[in-house]
Amino acid sequence: MFVSNAWYIIAEPQELENEAIVARTVLGKRLAIYRGRDGAIVAMEDRCPHRFAPLSLGKITDRGIQCAYHGAEFAANGQCVAVPAQKNPPDATVDTFPAVEKHGYVWGWLGDPELSGDESSIPDGFWVSGDPAWIGGYGHMESIKVDYRLINDNLFDITHAEFVHPESFGGEEVQFYRDAKRGTGFRDRGMTYEVGDNHIVFRTHAAALGQEGGPLWRSLLAQSRGLDDWPEPIDFRMEVYWWAPVYTSFHITVRPIDEPDADPVEIYNLHAAIPETEASSHYFYRSVRNYGDASMNAPFIEAAQAIFEQDKPVLEGQQEVLGARDLLDEDPISFRGDRLQLEGRRILNELIAAEAKDG
Amino acid sequence: MFVSNAWYIIAEPQELENEAIVARTVLGKRLAIYRGRDGAIVAMEDRCPHRFAPLSLGKITDRGIQCAYHGAEFAANGQCVAVPAQKNPPDATVDTFPAVEKHGYVWGWLGDPELSGDESSIPDGFWVSGDPAWIGGYGHMESIKVDYRLINDNLFDITHAEFVHPESFGGEEVQFYRDAKRGTGFRDRGMTYEVGDNHIVFRTHAAALGQEGGPLWRSLLAQSRGLDDWPEPIDFRMEVYWWAPVYTSFHITVRPIDEPDADPVEIYNLHAAIPETEASSHYFYRSVRNYGDASMNAPFIEAAQAIFEQDKPVLEGQQEVLGARDLLDEDPISFRGDRLQLEGRRILNELIAAEAKDG
Amino acid sequence: MFVSNAWYIIAEPQELENEAIVARTVLGKRLAIYRGRDGAIVAMEDRCPHRFAPLSLGKITDRGIQCAYHGAEFAANGQCVAVPAQKNPPDATVDTFPAVEKHGYVWGWLGDPELSGDESSIPDGFWVSGDPAWIGGYGHMESIKVDYRLINDNLFDITHAEFVHPESFGGEEVQFYRDAKRGTGFRDRGMTYEVGDNHIVFRTHAAALGQEGGPLWRSLLAQSRGLDDWPEPIDFRMEVYWWAPVYTSFHITVRPIDEPDADPVEIYNLHAAIPETEASSHYFYRSVRNYGDASMNAPFIEAAQAIFEQDKPVLEGQQEVLGARDLLDEDPISFRGDRLQLEGRRILNELIAAEAKDG
Repeated sequence: MFVSNAWYIIAEPQELENEAIVARTVLGKRLAIYRGRDGAIVAMEDRCPHRFAPLSLGKITDRGIQCAYHGAEFAANGQCVAVPAQKNPPDATVDTFPAVEKHGYVWGWLGDPELSGDESSIPDGFWVSGDPAWIGGYGHMESIKVDYRLINDNLFDITHAEFVHPESFGGEEVQFYRDAKRGTGFRDRGMTYEVGDNHIVFRTHAAALGQEGGPLWRSLLAQSRGLDDWPEPIDFRMEVYWWAPVYTSFHITVRPIDEPDADPVEIYNLHAAIPETEASSHYFYRSVRNYGDASMNAPFIEAAQAIFEQDKPVLEGQQEVLGARDLLDEDPISFRGDRLQLEGRRILNELIAAEAKDG
Repeated sequence: MFVSNAWYIIAEPQELENEAIVARTVLGKRLAIYRGRDGAIVAMEDRCPHRFAPLSLGKITDRGIQCAYHGAEFAANGQCVAVPAQKNPPDATVDTFPAVEKHGYVWGWLGDPELSGDESSIPDGFWVSGDPAWIGGYGHMESIKVDYRLINDNLFDITHAEFVHPESFGGEEVQFYRDAKRGTGFRDRGMTYEVGDNHIVFRTHAAALGQEGGPLWRSLLAQSRGLDDWPEPIDFRMEVYWWAPVYTSFHITVRPIDEPDADPVEIYNLHAAIPETEASSHYFYRSVRNYGDASMNAPFIEAAQAIFEQDKPVLEGQQEVLGARDLLDEDPISFRGDRLQLEGRRILNELIAAEAKDG
Repeated sequence: MFVSNAWYIIAEPQELENEAIVARTVLGKRLAIYRGRDGAIVAMEDRCPHRFAPLSLGKITDRGIQCAYHGAEFAANGQCVAVPAQKNPPDATVDTFPAVEKHGYVWGWLGDPELSGDESSIPDGFWVSGDPAWIGGYGHMESIKVDYRLINDNLFDITHAEFVHPESFGGEEVQFYRDAKRGTGFRDRGMTYEVGDNHIVFRTHAAALGQEGGPLWRSLLAQSRGLDDWPEPIDFRMEVYWWAPVYTSFHITVRPIDEPDADPVEIYNLHAAIPETEASSHYFYRSVRNYGDASMNAPFIEAAQAIFEQDKPVLEGQQEVLGARDLLDEDPISFRGDRLQLEGRRILNELIAAEAKDG
């Protein structure tokens, strides 16, 4: 159950350096992803139409990509343009898929190509990820045996943090999540959420809740100022943004409590659970921030990885229990804190149903 | 093809120490098995009804068990009793299964709970296993890819010993197995068997067959008396007891041939092939004896393990050959020595058929 | 999709030394293959009819083969001839299959036994392999996850050599493959092919094409004469013979260009892709030559292995892409150089269709 007509992250730009060809299955389609010599990124069915060898085993040529087995070459539009020792190549094509580089990622469109002009499913919130003013690193994990929707649920579900991640971001700030009220911005209430047509946003403002900010967030402020620690209260804000179908960002803002006009420390942690098959996913993530230098990147990526490693056994356990069944078809009970997660599932199901109706 | 209405070993008591929660599939059901803080043992569906995370990933609390994912808590009766930051927990339950601790094992009942009061399928012969006067050790192997019935056949089949275990208990005593006559006790004949409604017992008495007892059994007598060896003939008796559906004990009795009134050396080797799925089993075993101290336990358990390691490739080979087919449906030829094994299969099939009729 | 009525290589003779029993699945049938004490080779269903233990776990006896589990013995014709402690063995048999040793291999017939007298599917061209005048070594790889037809296609397809094996036999000689004309012998043209009822042969004669022979072939001539290299042009000829259903030999002949009457250096590289299941194969290969001694064998076998290791990821990739689908059902495009491969597929399909009609 995928949303087909959407842009999905299919690669990190640096994976395509040095004429590398990435083999990756997305939405059940085997893709060969590469950057041609003209600089354009190509996402192509990973199957030579001659003898069905994976094109990802081949190499980049001036004309496009060359099959490793018998040397046939295909242009970026999938057309066969050369066959060794044969004057006219056969009129054969490989399926290709729209692909763009944007916001620091390579995105592919696997649905109706007519609709690919609509880039609204490339979440604006990911812009920072491609902005050189923001410093950070990439991570990803291939082929996790978990339905992307379970990862999605997990990312946009703050209530699990105090149980699965108690020592990191599962602090007291997130325990108020269940009390979030509909609203906008950070000023009106300590905890608000909005539900849009294809996004959900949740905001928490620790100071408005009378809190002084947890140690993890204080340490970021200390780090940004070259201090060992920051013992004073802080103004901590977090905005969790989910865009259908599979994108979540955590935007953290930290200021000294008594410096309301100071430039804040800001971090974006970006997450994408890309469907590989109905029961497996690629998990891409990125952490960018507005201070420091590249030498600080690794710890942030390692922290994101470590947090996901805590989630992974739970997610894999869910998948094992569910097998091929859909969570919502199994009559789960839901808690008060599941409101936003269920809104996310509703949005996703509506998008899938709309495609089924149109298709 | 399982007997559902029976008590099955589902854990060793020491697996539940220190608030450990055991995840184990029995008769195709995923179970979380643990001891609550009130001391009572609980066997529960290993699935939180909220988001289907395995409860076995959780932890023990004062109220029962708490899910690792979102902190919901469930009492020993499966009732949801607490949800974080929510006044009234939803009216939700997890399936629970009768469980008792008896004879040194944890037993679970996965069939009709109304019938669980009948403890006759907890074999009396296992009583020694929980009696502190008997000294011994536990062993088990998880998820062997073999139908429990093939392991069952193997355990209650002496005829394979001279081929698979020639250097250990496959001695001359067991070669007479095929000549066993119906009868009771050790006195009337050298080799007898009885077939009951849900048990089979086979007895051999080496002295009555004119034998002096094999070296393995003599060494036990020597060990019990602190000697290096025992060169004299011995009075060796073995009683092999099979209780439907899956329990077998080997009771060995050894005395000096000229000390008919001496307290004998006694050993019980207890075996249980617990169905995990239709094609895989958990194998629990235990060896207890009436002499020595705990320092001698390990060699007995290692010997039992080593013997099963000899059987394992044969059993796995049978399973591979049979695949999902039932041995008896495949028209196997049978030998004279298979009588008791076939009686055991008949008893098992009658129990299964009776349940199918009632259910 | 197998040809059943054909002789298949099922073992190398040396695998059966020292009373070893080989367990190998061929055409989906599990076989126990061994040499009895009378010297005759037996290929037998790998399943004891008693309790279905694999007979390959057993041992050779004077009477035949003895099951590892309960000691039943079976003669070379499959008849049960002994059961321990039982006067008359039951009238039971294990299926047996015609097997012969020929041309340095053990061959088995898994189809209609009435037709096994026809040894025409044991390719004559393999005769050298069993001739002690030819020196060489054996190699094989078990259970490659590739349909035998894809390996077959690969072996009798010279056009991939310049892409997959550019540094070894993918030299300029083979680039003319696509220009082969129907014809016989080496003299009339530089490159010819013949298509028979159940064989295809392709011949190339480098000198007739105005070529001087590649460095790999020159090095063989140098080696045979005890020289470090051979800088002069050579007369290089290669005959690639494919016999249905699964055999290919490469016969290489090299002479100094100015010694037309010299005894040539000759090498036969023999290949067989034996179907294990519909989607996996055993790959047997052998390299024999008319010079040198056994100390030179290993490098030739290592070279054959190294070349197949280059093919393997491509072949496995094809299999993954195709899954259970047949290549020709998927409307592949074909190139000019695929003519002979397609003739091979046609011959194979006709043999399979003829069996389906007869059977």
